Amino acid sequence: MLTAPAKPHRAEIEHAVRRLLYQRLGRPTPRAAQAPRPLLVNVSARHCHLTPEAVETLFGKGHELTPMKALYQEGQYAAKESVTLIGPRSRVISNLRILGPCRDLNQVELAYTDAISLGFDIPVRASGDIAGTPGCMLMGPAGFLELPEGVIRAAPHVHMHPTDAEFYGFKPGSFARLKIDGPVGMTFDRILVRVSPDFKLEVHIDTDEGNACGLGPDTPCQLLP
Amino acid sequence: MLTAPAKPHRAEIEHAVRRLLYQRLGRPTPRAAQAPRPLLVNVSARHCHLTPEAVETLFGKGHELTPMKALYQEGQYAAKESVTLIGPRSRVISNLRILGPCRDLNQVELAYTDAISLGFDIPVRASGDIAGTPGCMLMGPAGFLELPEGVIRAAPHVHMHPTDAEFYGFKPGSFARLKIDGPVGMTFDRILVRVSPDFKLEVHIDTDEGNACGLGPDTPCQLLP
Repeated sequence: MLTAPAKPHRAEIEHAVRRLLYQRLGRPTPRAAQAPRPLLVNVSARHCHLTPEAVETLFGKGHELTPMKALYQEGQYAAKESVTLIGPRSRVISNLRILGPCRDLNQVELAYTDAISLGFDIPVRASGDIAGTPGCMLMGPAGFLELPEGVIRAAPHVHMHPTDAEFYGFKPGSFARLKIDGPVGMTFDRILVRVSPDFKLEVHIDTDEGNACGLGPDTPCQLLP
Repeated sequence: MLTAPAKPHRAEIEHAVRRLLYQRLGRPTPRAAQAPRPLLVNVSARHCHLTPEAVETLFGKGHELTPMKALYQEGQYAAKESVTLIGPRSRVISNLRILGPCRDLNQVELAYTDAISLGFDIPVRASGDIAGTPGCMLMGPAGFLELPEGVIRAAPHVHMHPTDAEFYGFKPGSFARLKIDGPVGMTFDRILVRVSPDFKLEVHIDTDEGNACGLGPDTPCQLLP
């Protein structure tokens, strides 16, 4: 089962229109409009990534994730399926969304606010770097799954294509700054740069970070060295 | 009733010791140690300020707030009393702490995460600037109090004595920057500067902001122009 191919994001269309307009008007194109892609900053709510085996344990033999909503990164989606997370003090978060497709490791990404309400002390980690992190129990309609590790606060990060990395002058694994304007304007000083030919330019911050800077759909954002 | 006079804060003692050490060693004192006071950054959890009349409505005729814990600012305290806040969709927050002493206006300060869970859309405002903000219902053991306005997200701000303002070069009402180090290091670009001879140097950020930057007791913080 697949989701319909994602339509071009509104920001992509605006970006293309902006470039054409400057061209037509014979005006110098501002640097932001020269960028290979528009800068999207999206808030990732808590979620998990699962292996095919974990999905079967939680949802039953032979079960596969059902795509519900395509995400901006090519091929990624929010699944219809969600799980219940049981924390160290038997406190729970229900409806923890699963993001697909399946991966080769199980990982739960929470904001600090979530972690505090559950009674977890979780580290900030790059996605996939889960050695020595706390575990938890997941509950699905067909069973329980104990994760010995994998609960993290994802380091705020930016996905980018090599052409974006070249334009902005970032190396994979380095840190970019992200300036957010508005009444509670702030600059994230450590946005982890992740580069892949499969990536489109997109910053992911969590709900705490999004709420702290009051990020809205029209908030001006700038990626800086 | 009064709380015991607050002992010098650990940061104040460290600040004094640091200065003496540099003096004794005959070494040049770093700028942070030259500051009139140490820089304290504290997280303000959601709370409210009430008028004496509001306290009587909620807790009964003649009732006065009982200090429970002295705050860093001289004379300010967390009261033993708390109220229940009822939001626009009948969702509630119980145990909303009252900060004393009483003021001449009623004001509720929430983080965005609180506001979202209650179903509020609240603006970022300086304390006291509540015209046109949403209201709410408060419930105490002796009665209800309807606030026509006063629910805000407090703008992140710094209290300072005029000698601090002079040292750092800040004018009242201007904005300072606050650089927080650590794995999710960030720089708050709009910390409202509040100056009074009654103030000790202290930054107040809310729980979203504190969680977003992962502020801990040993996190290095720097106030910048």
